[in-house]
Amino acid sequence: MPKALQPHPDRALPAGPARDVARRIHDSTKDLPLLCLHGHVDIGLFAADAPFGDPAELLVVPDHYVTRMLISQGVGPDKLGLPRVDGGQTAGPREIWREFCANWQLFLGTPSRYWLEHEFAEVLGLTVHPSAETADELYDQIMARIAEPDFRPRALLDRFNIELISTTDAATDDLAQHAELAADLPGRVVPTFRPDAVAHVNRADWPTLVAQLGALADVDTSTYDGFLAALRQRRQAFVAAGARATDHGHLSAAATPLSDAEASRIYSGALKGDVTTDDAAAFAGHMLYQSAVMSAEDGLVMQLHPGVLRDHHSEIFAKYGPDKGHDIPVAAEFTRSLRPLLERFGHADGFRLVLFTVDETVYSRELAPLAGVYPAVRLGAPWWFLDSPDGMRRFRELVTETAGFYNMSGFVDDTRAYLSIPARHDLARRIDAGYLANLVVQHRLDEDDALQVAKALAYDLARDTYLS
Amino acid sequence: MPKALQPHPDRALPAGPARDVARRIHDSTKDLPLLCLHGHVDIGLFAADAPFGDPAELLVVPDHYVTRMLISQGVGPDKLGLPRVDGGQTAGPREIWREFCANWQLFLGTPSRYWLEHEFAEVLGLTVHPSAETADELYDQIMARIAEPDFRPRALLDRFNIELISTTDAATDDLAQHAELAADLPGRVVPTFRPDAVAHVNRADWPTLVAQLGALADVDTSTYDGFLAALRQRRQAFVAAGARATDHGHLSAAATPLSDAEASRIYSGALKGDVTTDDAAAFAGHMLYQSAVMSAEDGLVMQLHPGVLRDHHSEIFAKYGPDKGHDIPVAAEFTRSLRPLLERFGHADGFRLVLFTVDETVYSRELAPLAGVYPAVRLGAPWWFLDSPDGMRRFRELVTETAGFYNMSGFVDDTRAYLSIPARHDLARRIDAGYLANLVVQHRLDEDDALQVAKALAYDLARDTYLS
Amino acid sequence: MPKALQPHPDRALPAGPARDVARRIHDSTKDLPLLCLHGHVDIGLFAADAPFGDPAELLVVPDHYVTRMLISQGVGPDKLGLPRVDGGQTAGPREIWREFCANWQLFLGTPSRYWLEHEFAEVLGLTVHPSAETADELYDQIMARIAEPDFRPRALLDRFNIELISTTDAATDDLAQHAELAADLPGRVVPTFRPDAVAHVNRADWPTLVAQLGALADVDTSTYDGFLAALRQRRQAFVAAGARATDHGHLSAAATPLSDAEASRIYSGALKGDVTTDDAAAFAGHMLYQSAVMSAEDGLVMQLHPGVLRDHHSEIFAKYGPDKGHDIPVAAEFTRSLRPLLERFGHADGFRLVLFTVDETVYSRELAPLAGVYPAVRLGAPWWFLDSPDGMRRFRELVTETAGFYNMSGFVDDTRAYLSIPARHDLARRIDAGYLANLVVQHRLDEDDALQVAKALAYDLARDTYLS
Repeated sequence: MPKALQPHPDRALPAGPARDVARRIHDSTKDLPLLCLHGHVDIGLFAADAPFGDPAELLVVPDHYVTRMLISQGVGPDKLGLPRVDGGQTAGPREIWREFCANWQLFLGTPSRYWLEHEFAEVLGLTVHPSAETADELYDQIMARIAEPDFRPRALLDRFNIELISTTDAATDDLAQHAELAADLPGRVVPTFRPDAVAHVNRADWPTLVAQLGALADVDTSTYDGFLAALRQRRQAFVAAGARATDHGHLSAAATPLSDAEASRIYSGALKGDVTTDDAAAFAGHMLYQSAVMSAEDGLVMQLHPGVLRDHHSEIFAKYGPDKGHDIPVAAEFTRSLRPLLERFGHADGFRLVLFTVDETVYSRELAPLAGVYPAVRLGAPWWFLDSPDGMRRFRELVTETAGFYNMSGFVDDTRAYLSIPARHDLARRIDAGYLANLVVQHRLDEDDALQVAKALAYDLARDTYLS
Repeated sequence: MPKALQPHPDRALPAGPARDVARRIHDSTKDLPLLCLHGHVDIGLFAADAPFGDPAELLVVPDHYVTRMLISQGVGPDKLGLPRVDGGQTAGPREIWREFCANWQLFLGTPSRYWLEHEFAEVLGLTVHPSAETADELYDQIMARIAEPDFRPRALLDRFNIELISTTDAATDDLAQHAELAADLPGRVVPTFRPDAVAHVNRADWPTLVAQLGALADVDTSTYDGFLAALRQRRQAFVAAGARATDHGHLSAAATPLSDAEASRIYSGALKGDVTTDDAAAFAGHMLYQSAVMSAEDGLVMQLHPGVLRDHHSEIFAKYGPDKGHDIPVAAEFTRSLRPLLERFGHADGFRLVLFTVDETVYSRELAPLAGVYPAVRLGAPWWFLDSPDGMRRFRELVTETAGFYNMSGFVDDTRAYLSIPARHDLARRIDAGYLANLVVQHRLDEDDALQVAKALAYDLARDTYLS
Repeated sequence: MPKALQPHPDRALPAGPARDVARRIHDSTKDLPLLCLHGHVDIGLFAADAPFGDPAELLVVPDHYVTRMLISQGVGPDKLGLPRVDGGQTAGPREIWREFCANWQLFLGTPSRYWLEHEFAEVLGLTVHPSAETADELYDQIMARIAEPDFRPRALLDRFNIELISTTDAATDDLAQHAELAADLPGRVVPTFRPDAVAHVNRADWPTLVAQLGALADVDTSTYDGFLAALRQRRQAFVAAGARATDHGHLSAAATPLSDAEASRIYSGALKGDVTTDDAAAFAGHMLYQSAVMSAEDGLVMQLHPGVLRDHHSEIFAKYGPDKGHDIPVAAEFTRSLRPLLERFGHADGFRLVLFTVDETVYSRELAPLAGVYPAVRLGAPWWFLDSPDGMRRFRELVTETAGFYNMSGFVDDTRAYLSIPARHDLARRIDAGYLANLVVQHRLDEDDALQVAKALAYDLARDTYLS
C-alpha cells in the first residue's frame, strides 16, 4: 500500500518543553502575508498567466536542488530532461517524473523533501508519497489539478497570500513584460535590477550586452562614462517599474573603487576584447562600489551574495548551460572586502546593503559584527544551501547575539520554484518559532517579546528593509 | 503599565530533563569567588574610588557593545555622548539615557540584555524594564543608588565577591595608581602588561612611546637592544606590582623571530620614520616571539588574541577615537603562525600561553588540537563577541572533545564595564552548568564528575593558569 | 572505594522525548556486522596472531589520542614509553599504566574516555574506573585477560563482529603478511594502497623508496614513466590481494595535473636531490590527479584526507618519530583544489572519491555541495579529531540538508587501536540514532524511514561505497 502523505501540523517545531510555546508563536505568524523580495521566479510566468505544462516541468526540471540530488546518484541530466544547448533529445515528462518518484528517498533529511511534501499535500492535494508505484497516478492527479483555472500563476498569488513579489532582471531587460503585467495587476510583481552580466567584462557576450544596454538606454556605451550613464538610466527605468532593490552575485565581495582613468582603461580595453583576468576582477569590484554610489543616489536597496564558483564542471555547462546545480561555494570574506564601500556609505543616510552568504564561517566572525554597528547593513535570510531547517537555526544562533534581531532583512525567500514559496516561508516561520520558543523556555526571552520578534522576522523587517 | 523586571532564577539553564541537574551544578558554583584576570576596568576607578557619575556614564557611554547596537539602528554617536576627539558638544546624560531606554528592544537576544537585566535587578535594585516611559524614573533611581557609600568601586569588590582583578596597562604606564591602590588594598587589583603599542613600529605615536618607555625604564631606547632591555625592565616593574600576565592584541598570530640584525634594522629605520607595512608586520610578529622569550624568563603568562581589524571606519576613528564598536574580526590562523614559538616554548617548563579568538572556525580545527598536546597552551574563555550564551556553548562543544576540560584557562571575563562582571561570571557558570548537565543526562559524564569540572571551569583552572 | 565502571545502556543517546525513538533505532543497528574500511591496524598483528603484551602496549603507548592528552598536561613522552628514535630508555609498562590511571580525569568529555570505558567494561571485563589506587589491580586483571586464547587478534575479529577490515599499506609494502594471513583467513583482512611517501619527492627517503618500489614491481623507476608503470603494477598487486581502496593524506587537496614533460622534469631532478618546495607540492598535486586516472582504470576507491600539518614540533619528531600527537590541522579547501580532477572524473562511471576533513568549515560550504551533485563523490565519516559525539552530530547537521544521506560513505572507523573498533562503531550508531530520532520527534522524518537510513549509515552505504 502506498505510504500516506500527511505533513504533521507540528513539523519542524521543537519537541519537548518548547513545543507549546513554538506552536503559539507559529500560530501568530503563519497567516501573515508573504513578502518575496529576493526571488527568481520568471516574469514571463505572470505575464503569460498560462496553465503550467506538466509535473516534470512544474516540479523537477527547473529546480536545481532537485536535479542535482538525482544527478549525484547517477541519474543523468538527459533522463531529467535538462534542456540541451544543442537542442538534443531528452526524456519526456512522464519518464522524468518516474525517475523523480522512484528516487524519492534521496531527499530524506533535505529541505527539498520538506518543501515538496508541503506543495504536494497543501497546494496539489496529493495524499500518497511518490514512489515507483505511485508515479503514474500522481502524474495524472497533478495534470488534472494544474488544468483548473484557479491554478494559474496570477490566481496563485492570492492563494499563496503573496503581498509583493520581485523578479530578478538583467540590466539589459526592457521590462516590457513587467509593464504588461502592471497594467493588469499594479504593484504586485516588481523587477530587481541585476547588473552582474555587464559588470563582468571578460564574459564572452559582454560587448554585445553593453551595446544592448546602450541601445535600451539610448546612451552611447562606447565609453566608460557612457556605460555609467546607461546604468543610471536603466536603474531609473527599474525604479519607475516599482523596483526596490539591486542584486549582485559576484565571486568575491571586494568593492574597491578604481580611479576613473583606470576604470576607463579597462573598459575600453575590454570593448576591444583585450582584458586580463585580474583587470576583469578589479573592474567587477569597482562596479560593486559604483553600484553603492548609485544606490545612495536612487535609494535601491543593494543586495550582495558573493562566494559561489559558478559552473564548476565545464562539460555540464557546455551541454546544459548555467544553473544546473554545479555551482559550488568557496570561502567568503567581507571585513576587508567591503571596507572601502562601508567607509564611504556604511553610515550614509538612505543607503542599505543586505548581505547574503553560503559560507557560514562569516556569520559570527564578520557578518554579525558588521550588521551590529553599520546602520547601512542588514543580514539577508540564510541563502541557497542554507535555506534549510538546521541552516536557519544555525544562522539565528550565530548572528543574533551580536547583531540582535533588528539588523536582519526578514525572511525573503530565494527561489525559481514558484510553487515552493509558501512552503519556504512557512518553514522559516516554524524554525524561527522554534528558535524563539527555546529562548523562552530557557528564560532568555519573554513570550510577549518573542511574539513581537517573530512578527518582525516574518514580515515587518522585510517591509522595513525594502519598502520603507 | 511598565513591564516588570524579574530575572528568572533558572535563566540560561536548559529546559527539559537537564534542568534539575543544571540547577544543582549551578548551585555548587554560583558563590565561588571571581577571578578577573583578563579585564580592562580602568585602574583609575579603584585608585580614585569616587562615586560613579550618572547612568549614561556608568552603563551606556563606555560600553561599546551597547553603543554599537544603538549606532547600528541609526542613533548617532553624538546622541550617545561618545566623547569627540575635537571636544565638540554631545548629548547630556539624561538624553543619552533616554535614547538607550527607548531602544531597549534592540538588545533582545543579546548578552548585553542579559548582563544589563542582571545589573539592573541585582546590582541596582530596579524593578521595571527600561522604555521611553520609564527612562526618567530609572535615571533618578540609579542616581540615588550610586550616591550610596557602599556603591563605591572598592566597596563593590567585596559585594561582587571579586578575589582578584587585573587591569590592562600599557608598557609605558608608570603604575603609580597601582602603587597607590596597593597601599590601601594589597594584592586585590594587579596590572597586566600590554606592550602592543610599542610593538607596532608604524603607529604615528610610536617614536614618542619608545622614548617614554626608555625614560620610564631609565634605559636608552635609541637602539633595538636598549628597547628589549627597557621592556624587560618594565616587565620586572609589573611583576613587582603583582602582574601575572601579559596581553597581546595583534592582527595576526604570526610569531616568527627575525635575526637580531634584521630586527635592529627595522627598529632603527622606524625611529627615523622610515618603515614599510611589511617590515612593521614582521617586527610585530618578532615581538610576539620575543614576548615568549621574556615570559619564559619571568613567568608572566602570555595571553594572545589575534584576528581583529581595528577601527574599520576611519571617520569614526578620526572623530571619536578607538574602541567605538568599529573593530571587526577577520579570519584567524594559529597552526602555522604559532609554530616557531611553539617549536621553542611549547614544551618549555614554566611557560604558559593562553589563546583567545573571535573566529570560531579555529576552535576545533586548530585551538583544541594545539591545546590538546602542547603543555604550554591553554584556551581562554570565549572572547568579546563570543562571550555569550550560545557562543560559550559552542566553544565547549567544539573544543572539549579534543582538548578536554583541563587545558582551559577557566572563565576570566574581559570587560571595561565593571558593573557587568558578576553578571558575566554568573552567565558563564550557568552555560557551563547547562552544558555539563546535558552530558550528564545523555550519560556521557557522571554527575559527581560534572560537579568537579564545573568548579574547575569557574574557579580552579583560572587559579591554576594564572596564579600557580 | 573505587568508582564502579558501568557504561549506561542509554549512553550518548539524547535525553528527553527523542530517547525512546533513539533506543529503537539503535536496537535495530547495534548488531549489524562491522565494515572497517579506512583502518590503520597493523597487518602484523593479524599475521602473527600473538597475545597482546601488556596494558600499556595495548591501550596507551600506540594511541596518540591518549598520549597527546597526557603530554598536554605535562606528562613527558618518556614517562609514557613513547619509543625513542635513539633507542633510549623509557618507562616500563607498569609505570606507564600508573601514569595513565592517575590522570584518568583528563579524558572527561572526550571520545577517548568513551571508547576506553566501553573497552574496559565490555571487552576487558573491568568493573572499576582507573585511578592511582586501582592502577595495579587493573593492570593485573588486564594481563590475565589478554593471556586467554580467545583474546588473540584473529579470535577478536569474530567477537567484534568484524565482517571485513582493511589495513593501510605503503606502495612499497610487499604484502607478504597479507598473503600469509589470506591463506588462513581469506577475504577478511585486506590491504589499502597508500602511495603518499612516493608521491612526495622532497622526503629525505624518497630516492630510496622509489628504488624499492621499482625493485618490488620489477620496473625501472629511474624515469617518470617507469615510476607510473611501477605504481600501476603495485596497484594490481594490491587489487589481487583484495584491496578496495587507496588512501591519500596530502597537506593540500590540490589535484592539478602537470604536463608529462613538467612531471618528468621534477621527477628527474628529485632523483638527483634537486627539487624546490614548490615543485614538490606541484608534483604531489599531480600525483593526486594521476591516482584518480589509475582509480578510473582499476576501480580502487580513492580516499582523500587533506589539511593536516604533520609533525608540528620538530624536536618531538626527531626524538620520537611521526604520529605522536603533534599533527595539527590547517584550513582546507576543496572547491578549487579538486576542480581539475572532478572536471575529468566527477561524472565518470566507476570512479569513486571519498572525502574526509578535519576542518569543519568545509562541511556545508564545500563538501556537501560537491557530494550533492557529483556522482563520483561521497563523504567519509567524521575523521580523527571529529570522530566524537558532538563532532558526528555536527557533521550530520551540516551536510545532510544539502547532500542527503545516500551520498555518505557510511561509518568506516579510522584507528590504529584495534580494541577500540567496536566502541567506535557503537558510538557512531548511537549518535546517528540520536540524530535521526530528533528528526523523528520534530516530524522531519518518519520512524520507518529513520530505521532504513540508520541501517544505511551503519552498514549498507559502506558496502555500497567500497564493495559494490
